[in-house]
Amino acid sequence: MTDAPRRADPSPLAGAGAPLAGLRVLELGHFVAAPFATRLLGDLGAEIIKVEPPNGDPVRQWGARHNGQAPWWSVHARNKRCIALDLKRPEAREIVLGLVKHCDAVVENFRPGQLERLGLGAAAMKAARPDLVIARISGYGQDGPYRDRAAFGVIGEAIGGLRYLTDHAPGTSDLPPVRVGVSLGDSVAGIYAALGVVAALWRRDRRSAPPGPGGEVDVALTEAVFSLLEGALPDYSTLGTIRQPSGGGIATAAPTNAYRARDGVWVLIAANSDPLFRRLATLMGAPELVEDPRFADNQGRVRNVAELDALIGAWAARFDAPALEAMLAEADIPSTRVFTIADCAADPQFRAREMVREVADPLHGPVLHPGVVPRIDGAVPPPRSTGPEVGADTADVLRDLLGLGADEVAALQEAGVLRAKR
Amino acid sequence: MTDAPRRADPSPLAGAGAPLAGLRVLELGHFVAAPFATRLLGDLGAEIIKVEPPNGDPVRQWGARHNGQAPWWSVHARNKRCIALDLKRPEAREIVLGLVKHCDAVVENFRPGQLERLGLGAAAMKAARPDLVIARISGYGQDGPYRDRAAFGVIGEAIGGLRYLTDHAPGTSDLPPVRVGVSLGDSVAGIYAALGVVAALWRRDRRSAPPGPGGEVDVALTEAVFSLLEGALPDYSTLGTIRQPSGGGIATAAPTNAYRARDGVWVLIAANSDPLFRRLATLMGAPELVEDPRFADNQGRVRNVAELDALIGAWAARFDAPALEAMLAEADIPSTRVFTIADCAADPQFRAREMVREVADPLHGPVLHPGVVPRIDGAVPPPRSTGPEVGADTADVLRDLLGLGADEVAALQEAGVLRAKR
Repeated sequence: MTDAPRRADPSPLAGAGAPLAGLRVLELGHFVAAPFATRLLGDLGAEIIKVEPPNGDPVRQWGARHNGQAPWWSVHARNKRCIALDLKRPEAREIVLGLVKHCDAVVENFRPGQLERLGLGAAAMKAARPDLVIARISGYGQDGPYRDRAAFGVIGEAIGGLRYLTDHAPGTSDLPPVRVGVSLGDSVAGIYAALGVVAALWRRDRRSAPPGPGGEVDVALTEAVFSLLEGALPDYSTLGTIRQPSGGGIATAAPTNAYRARDGVWVLIAANSDPLFRRLATLMGAPELVEDPRFADNQGRVRNVAELDALIGAWAARFDAPALEAMLAEADIPSTRVFTIADCAADPQFRAREMVREVADPLHGPVLHPGVVPRIDGAVPPPRSTGPEVGADTADVLRDLLGLGADEVAALQEAGVLRAKR
Repeated sequence: MTDAPRRADPSPLAGAGAPLAGLRVLELGHFVAAPFATRLLGDLGAEIIKVEPPNGDPVRQWGARHNGQAPWWSVHARNKRCIALDLKRPEAREIVLGLVKHCDAVVENFRPGQLERLGLGAAAMKAARPDLVIARISGYGQDGPYRDRAAFGVIGEAIGGLRYLTDHAPGTSDLPPVRVGVSLGDSVAGIYAALGVVAALWRRDRRSAPPGPGGEVDVALTEAVFSLLEGALPDYSTLGTIRQPSGGGIATAAPTNAYRARDGVWVLIAANSDPLFRRLATLMGAPELVEDPRFADNQGRVRNVAELDALIGAWAARFDAPALEAMLAEADIPSTRVFTIADCAADPQFRAREMVREVADPLHGPVLHPGVVPRIDGAVPPPRSTGPEVGADTADVLRDLLGLGADEVAALQEAGVLRAKR
């Protein structure tokens, strides 16, 4: 069944009942991090107003296109009202500050200093709205010696320490370490920014204290990645150990890795406890492995993991993935094929929880959208809207929030200050 | 300089001024996801009470140990008051429900159904505290056909679609896809849970509406990972394309990859625009590459990326990493060595922003702690405490919140219901 959302409800009560219904957030974002943060806030019920340049956010044209636009846009800008302004124009600056007056929060990911140069720094925005929460996402943060460096996601992920760990074990391969196949740093920074916005709003708005001051949230892509490194930093400082990559496995447990089935599909098997390994050895028709001193306990299995993985790999390669998966499930051994996006799209659990959901998009027809994370209070309604055209909401938003008439909007469009869909 | 935190201030105003000061959160967690969620909430100023089994959270003994405990514990349980209870005992259940009365939120990551079997399901907790926010983190979610499956992190990451994308391009290597070198799914699920808790608390507590109902936050590890896949799902549903891994590079831009310097260190170079590539070619002493029809534009460079990477790799291998980095920086080409944890620890930007900070731990002496993400309102104070011993706060918490006397705690300890440090 296809959910058919209408254009975003212009009222601030869009998504009534949703946790963040009643909040209005202005996005001055582009590419991934800030727009992802506001998408999450919009998914939870906040009203989002996104400001784009008149030629649109580059994500509209990023990667493959369908009917002239990246299908990602349908998701990336869902539940957003999109207005198009040329921020270099003083009139546009006035419009933004006028909108800020009516917003609880702003989320932006310009390079540090750039909004200040446009007359839209934190001070100007707080003058317009003293209790504003401003979330700023950047490569390295709003201060410190590197704050002015260009923020390339891949560079930030490497500085955050994750690229080094995402590799085969030292000496295994001449290939370079692998990029996590998505803009992980941008996305994780976006989730942290959403958390920071809501935390600052809780402080501002809670009824058990006098009205609070708003706040400034500062998220660096490098730091968002670095926050994921578990015990690597305290281990290094107390023990002097430098955490190393371990390929498809885990440095401290075996066997757990992906093994290639006869049909070429990788199947992940996590049999890294004594009872699980016993079941796997039995399934392999090699119960003697459990008594083999090389593999009798986890310590031994870790020490001899290359030999063990070779044995399991040779066994796995005798079966096609569906048969292998069925045997492993029957033996109650944690395992799964390594999911492609096609596997995700077909997964019964994702479907049952509406993590994969068909949504009608005016441009594309039916599009599969990922669901809402975190899910709050059970089932989540479909998106209120899919990513709109450039300038789709300019006229409506400027009318609703600033009282501008159609003629005024037309004049500003004529003057090149904004772009409004007619 | 070493920050020397005292034991967590028992007052609910611990961290006064911090965004979440005034909140009290009970953690029924173990391993990574729920404890990481509460660590983030504690970093933002909430008071955290963690319930452990009498023999402690397994993370205390995970991986390498220093002075008998994993150094990670110093970070993972910072700003937490730790109490030790045997949840199988009815008396312990009563204690937990008594504590819940005094808490704003509970964060747990038991397998779905397990807390219910202990008499600590959502209904029992809400009976104790009707406006409670409960965040539940699990492998697959609280409902659906897979909810009862064991939640292995590596399995969840594969089902979330990320393992497939973290690999060399198809046909490049016989090695299996790579695990992101950390428990990424657990950590991202933890961040989402923290976001869900604060969003539900904003709805409950905001002064612009009557007191709200609390809420139930449901985060699945698989879904947290799946949420990071950008446009993969809408692309698949509209275009039929199955997103593929691209090793150390990016499928749509070149050159951007890691290249091995003479000293073996990988150096990331992102010269994937025409002006950047021109600068790189000049630096390589091969300006003619810019006119070479194979490399003249991004499309060509992507098509011929293997040849291009080989040329850059051969050039990079002539220099040690420090020299290579200096030349690239001088030429203003985005680049960095691929940071190990030692590089992170020494990085001036991380140090300037207190993302790497020396903290005094009673067990370990000085330990490097990662800082607070997201940073709110500038500089962040040091942790209020490092991860405590098992049962360190049992007596104090039961006295402060439930009014239990020392003799009552001693009797419960005698009876095996709890463990309290004397």
